[in-house]
Amino acid sequence: MSTYLAIDIGGTQIRAATFNNECTEPIRHQRAKTHAPDGTIFDRLCATVEDVWPEHGGVVAIGVACPGPLDPKSGIILDTPNIPQWDNFPLVDKLKERFKVPIYLNNDASLACLGEWRFGAGKGHEDVLYLTISTGIGGGVVSENRLIQGHHGLATELGHVTVAPGGPMCGCGQRGHLEAFASGPSIVRYVKLQMAGGVQSTLKPEPSLSAKQVSEAAAAGDILAISAFSRAGKYLGIAVASFLHAFNPSIIIFGGGVSQSGPLLFEPFKKSLEKHIIHPMYLKDLEIATAELGDNAGLLGALALAQIS
Amino acid sequence: MSTYLAIDIGGTQIRAATFNNECTEPIRHQRAKTHAPDGTIFDRLCATVEDVWPEHGGVVAIGVACPGPLDPKSGIILDTPNIPQWDNFPLVDKLKERFKVPIYLNNDASLACLGEWRFGAGKGHEDVLYLTISTGIGGGVVSENRLIQGHHGLATELGHVTVAPGGPMCGCGQRGHLEAFASGPSIVRYVKLQMAGGVQSTLKPEPSLSAKQVSEAAAAGDILAISAFSRAGKYLGIAVASFLHAFNPSIIIFGGGVSQSGPLLFEPFKKSLEKHIIHPMYLKDLEIATAELGDNAGLLGALALAQIS
Repeated sequence: MSTYLAIDIGGTQIRAATFNNECTEPIRHQRAKTHAPDGTIFDRLCATVEDVWPEHGGVVAIGVACPGPLDPKSGIILDTPNIPQWDNFPLVDKLKERFKVPIYLNNDASLACLGEWRFGAGKGHEDVLYLTISTGIGGGVVSENRLIQGHHGLATELGHVTVAPGGPMCGCGQRGHLEAFASGPSIVRYVKLQMAGGVQSTLKPEPSLSAKQVSEAAAAGDILAISAFSRAGKYLGIAVASFLHAFNPSIIIFGGGVSQSGPLLFEPFKKSLEKHIIHPMYLKDLEIATAELGDNAGLLGALALAQIS
Repeated sequence: MSTYLAIDIGGTQIRAATFNNECTEPIRHQRAKTHAPDGTIFDRLCATVEDVWPEHGGVVAIGVACPGPLDPKSGIILDTPNIPQWDNFPLVDKLKERFKVPIYLNNDASLACLGEWRFGAGKGHEDVLYLTISTGIGGGVVSENRLIQGHHGLATELGHVTVAPGGPMCGCGQRGHLEAFASGPSIVRYVKLQMAGGVQSTLKPEPSLSAKQVSEAAAAGDILAISAFSRAGKYLGIAVASFLHAFNPSIIIFGGGVSQSGPLLFEPFKKSLEKHIIHPMYLKDLEIATAELGDNAGLLGALALAQIS
């Protein structure tokens, strides 16, 4: 029996689980808070791993999903915004020293892609484009059954591809990125800006206004809310056309909360995508799917990484 | 002794050559015109191959470079603009039937990338981004020592990535692509448009005006000519920053005539690239190089393809 251990580290919680063979139901599964008053994040991580460690041992490998930027080849976390304790942190070496098994690390979006490719919506596809649209936009690409990683493992940062130079400010400090047009906060920001400019809406420009509220207002017929999603879909279509020209996948998988907005986002997206594609072959047999693994995408991606590495 | 045969099909000429083992000097080398009054292109191609076919036989495989769009997996030329005779032409099957050896096909830009990776400026690199800038802009990417191809082999059409929606018209009929800003004809078009708008220049807005003439005028101090290359360099930097975020290569190799414009293009390019990158790690150890294989890039790329397939 081969046992694999998967770890998913997020800004708010750490999860660890053990799995047998090809089964995606965990044998043991444990969570901990990422940030807490006592101890270090690494200590909490190790305690969580020990909680799920099988009594008989026999762990073949550990896969770890963590927010980037990180270097999967050197195993170093570079400077993940939500985990400032881990600036230039050699996570793989530290875990290897502690648990004495092979450790494989990659960023959460790439591993969500790998997880969907192995266990989810991308099963059977050799060329997968994965996009998660929520607070930010993350990407992952499997090309001929292999994750595209790049020299320092920093490839497929697809939220930070410029779609309109000089456009709105992105969370990263640059302007005009896809993320600055189509992430949840950028949809909300657009609504607020339009309202500040005098456009009428049923929404209130409160600090707590969320993309979900904008989507609900759109569903109830609010013109501004509808136009905010149309705009996001339009730029998403422009960017995804470029991604098809760059990667020519056979499936696009959308994850993340904003992806659950349905036709509100995806009708204008598809219209824009079809308009911006340079050859009909890019759309031939192209599947557009919703992520199947939900909150488990990172964890199951880490499992997939441990299994195939 | 292993003999490989490489074919490079262009809009004006067909080349075929045989090579022994790892040597990049051809044993035999023959050219023919792509278009001629008599016979078909395929007939001329076969005659050229027969011209270089070794007397003792022993050809292990044939690699073929051809302008895209084409599908390397099915071996079909889709609709290459310069070879209308070959719409939906099953080139690989036809060649296999005739020469009874394994045939491998890919598009010229991807194979130029593969050639540079195996024999040229990219030797020793695992992650290569190749861009050729001339009449159009073509791209190729080697990721962890493998060519990125995509589902139908249509990946890395990097000239047709949108850098400014609604921008100038591209050769493909879409607007705002990289090619519409930084190819030779787009640099010339910008100069002509500015002159039509009243901007002074030493250049004459004649139909024959070339990017080379614009580059010579810039070298002689013409302000408009200099600004035309600055603009091309700026948008090239924006696009390449997105390519680094997408592929994270360790080397960028520039081929094509416009790439020979030197600092005129590459100073504004580098400034723009540095400005638009989201993390300094993308530039760490990044080499920016000029293609080494020149006119032989397609042929040697076809050789590389035959050798590694």
